[in-house]
Amino acid sequence: MAALQSVDQFLSENSQQSVEQLQEFLRIASVSADSAYAAEMEQAAQFVCDEMQRAGLDAEIVPTDGYPIVYGEKTADPAAPTVLIYGHYDVQPPDPVEDWVTPPFEPEVRNGCLYARGATDNKGQLFTHLKSIEAWTRSTGGLPVNVKFIVEGEEECGSNNLDRFLQDHRERLAADIAVISDTSQYGPGMPAITYGLRGVVACEVTLRGPKQDLHSGVFGGAIANPVNALAAMVGRLVDEQGKVTIPGFYDDVQPITDEERAQLANLPFDEASFLESLGVGETFGEAGYSTLERRWARPTCDVNGLFGGYQGEGPKTIVPASATAKITCRLVPDQDPERITAAIHTYLKSLCPPGLKLEFTDQHGCRAMVVDMGGTYAAAARKAIEAGFGVAPVQIREGGSIPVVASLREILEIDTLLLGWGRNTDNLHSPNEHFHLEDFHHGTRASAHLWHYLAEK
Amino acid sequence: MAALQSVDQFLSENSQQSVEQLQEFLRIASVSADSAYAAEMEQAAQFVCDEMQRAGLDAEIVPTDGYPIVYGEKTADPAAPTVLIYGHYDVQPPDPVEDWVTPPFEPEVRNGCLYARGATDNKGQLFTHLKSIEAWTRSTGGLPVNVKFIVEGEEECGSNNLDRFLQDHRERLAADIAVISDTSQYGPGMPAITYGLRGVVACEVTLRGPKQDLHSGVFGGAIANPVNALAAMVGRLVDEQGKVTIPGFYDDVQPITDEERAQLANLPFDEASFLESLGVGETFGEAGYSTLERRWARPTCDVNGLFGGYQGEGPKTIVPASATAKITCRLVPDQDPERITAAIHTYLKSLCPPGLKLEFTDQHGCRAMVVDMGGTYAAAARKAIEAGFGVAPVQIREGGSIPVVASLREILEIDTLLLGWGRNTDNLHSPNEHFHLEDFHHGTRASAHLWHYLAEK
Repeated sequence: MAALQSVDQFLSENSQQSVEQLQEFLRIASVSADSAYAAEMEQAAQFVCDEMQRAGLDAEIVPTDGYPIVYGEKTADPAAPTVLIYGHYDVQPPDPVEDWVTPPFEPEVRNGCLYARGATDNKGQLFTHLKSIEAWTRSTGGLPVNVKFIVEGEEECGSNNLDRFLQDHRERLAADIAVISDTSQYGPGMPAITYGLRGVVACEVTLRGPKQDLHSGVFGGAIANPVNALAAMVGRLVDEQGKVTIPGFYDDVQPITDEERAQLANLPFDEASFLESLGVGETFGEAGYSTLERRWARPTCDVNGLFGGYQGEGPKTIVPASATAKITCRLVPDQDPERITAAIHTYLKSLCPPGLKLEFTDQHGCRAMVVDMGGTYAAAARKAIEAGFGVAPVQIREGGSIPVVASLREILEIDTLLLGWGRNTDNLHSPNEHFHLEDFHHGTRASAHLWHYLAEK
Repeated sequence: MAALQSVDQFLSENSQQSVEQLQEFLRIASVSADSAYAAEMEQAAQFVCDEMQRAGLDAEIVPTDGYPIVYGEKTADPAAPTVLIYGHYDVQPPDPVEDWVTPPFEPEVRNGCLYARGATDNKGQLFTHLKSIEAWTRSTGGLPVNVKFIVEGEEECGSNNLDRFLQDHRERLAADIAVISDTSQYGPGMPAITYGLRGVVACEVTLRGPKQDLHSGVFGGAIANPVNALAAMVGRLVDEQGKVTIPGFYDDVQPITDEERAQLANLPFDEASFLESLGVGETFGEAGYSTLERRWARPTCDVNGLFGGYQGEGPKTIVPASATAKITCRLVPDQDPERITAAIHTYLKSLCPPGLKLEFTDQHGCRAMVVDMGGTYAAAARKAIEAGFGVAPVQIREGGSIPVVASLREILEIDTLLLGWGRNTDNLHSPNEHFHLEDFHHGTRASAHLWHYLAEK
């Protein structure tokens, strides 16, 4: 524990300096979605590389077909566990800029928060791990675990080159467990371990009828109307009780255990204010499950877009030529994206009336993931968070998908601990993004302790 | 017959000029459904007024609460019959514009056809009557019948101000018979008198959910998705056998008589080439009825437009905020538009899931109509058509709706001769609308002869 104490002391003594270094990082407008910021993207990659080296890692900038990936590593002891840390140095566009109180790339501390684009997502959270590693190497001369650190520059625009990087460096990247801080606390002062994410499949369906829009008076009743038909087809994806009706859809779904249901039921969740924030009068979904269960641990099928025929002002009396639906399903363990995609095809084909042509365009899907919370890595994370924040973490799932987590599972065959230091009220992707400095310091300390507890294994 | 010969000669000598004048008319983008075209609407009304004056009528532009009605009249002989002619100067929106070979408002003659939005519906067909009257007045100095000519600008968006105009000018508009060319020939070289039309009701439904699009990972499964829900609702308007499922929809439907079924079965109808012309593999519709019966004498329910959520490229994982459907039903005797509209509302409300808000916007409705073909005016029309086209007309019904026919019956108490010069393959309401110049010239001649035969009465 002597090592851990000196690490803590180092962090305390250098806390102000860490914030100043983070501010320097935040001054770089590394917006990956807009090619006008290409120079800033390079600058940000260099900054991360320098920080990795300052933290004692062997670091390099690895070119890709898009923005480079910064990679750093340090082998402490071949017998110790190897941790793979992931983060990203790119940020969301700052628009609408006029809604920011202070400019997005001129970080300012107000009321205990650091305001800037990327303050939480992901520069600030990423920085906690850089600083915790630096604290170990500079105060103790070593690290309790082996570290492999990947920081990409395309998370906000599709991570198009990440999988290729993971595949190309499969052996070099071999690790026992991954750590990512790109999620949120469950609430203020409620740090969380996110142990589950839903997967996703996306498919676009186009139904074609006559070769052009037809007069509905002259032709209505003679042939199938693709808009009526597609509405009927996609209208039968989910029943009136909110259950998905695609045959086979639930075949591989792992039921929620009684233990987990009890645990989710214990989480504070104010349904009235949840609904008010969405502007909706009532919840709706699969019968027999709570709202949190439906959002996190049950699969869904949403039509994200639907269009066909006339959309202008007033009526237009046509039988439209075609109709298109964009469909995504959120998946849970052990649903297989390919099997679900095939089930959607089979089902929609079975519902298609005669005389119409059905076309599918499938996008890449990913599996859901749930980390075993009974393992020693999860136990280490719980202890580290309690040390950093002064309270035990809650264990939550999230309804969205984080493709990198699926990639790490599929390509490197490792699980991920999702440790969120920020809050979902930190205005991620919105104007006035900020990071509570308290969360930054607690997170850095939790990170430092995590390396210690992981090594205890 | 000397007069008729000089009229025919005038038409022959001026046929090219008539086409050029029609092209000038077609250059005016008089789209009534979209307020962006208000200036073009005024221009079109002025054009019609000028043409009426050129034809020897006393003409004026009569303001309404919407677009103006152009009215022209000429009393030839108080003892002669009075004919009321109706047409419309507004056209359907040209969307999708990218599907036109030449731009919709740049008329071009190709392969004996004049291509432009409105070429047939209704500028071209309306023009035959303007030109036949001009031929009479300019070649003989008079007209065999008294003429009252109404050309409105709101036919394609509900004719909202026409009934008011008819009511306000009931006495001035008194006539013996109405003539409208806004229908089609039965086939090439098979001019038709249309004795039956379907009615119509139109209604727009918007279903609102969350106040903005939501992340489908974070919120999917928690609340009702308005696109899924609206698809399911409008997908249940028609069943898999093509029968409309709105409760009460068929209550007032007059069955087709055996005599009429026999007559319809005698009309030549090549289903294979019909389907090929539409680019469809099979017919589809209410079981137990022939395709012609379903198009002309059975009611339908078509979704003309449906939209909600994301329509761009690729996937977007949202629960959309709202969805909208544009619905029209074609009606047959004795269905009542108001009763059917109410039945749609009641049915869709019964299908709406909790937490969503349903909004209706109802548009124009009109009853179906069927005319008596035993009268002397119908006989005059048969002779005139034979003179113009060289063959006797067939007697048909049409699936479309012409609300003015119902209004003329109800308000002015006159019957209407529906004389179609165009073809139902002329792409009415579709890209590449056109009018065969042969039909234009034959129709103009038939129109000129009609005034003669009507006076023979």
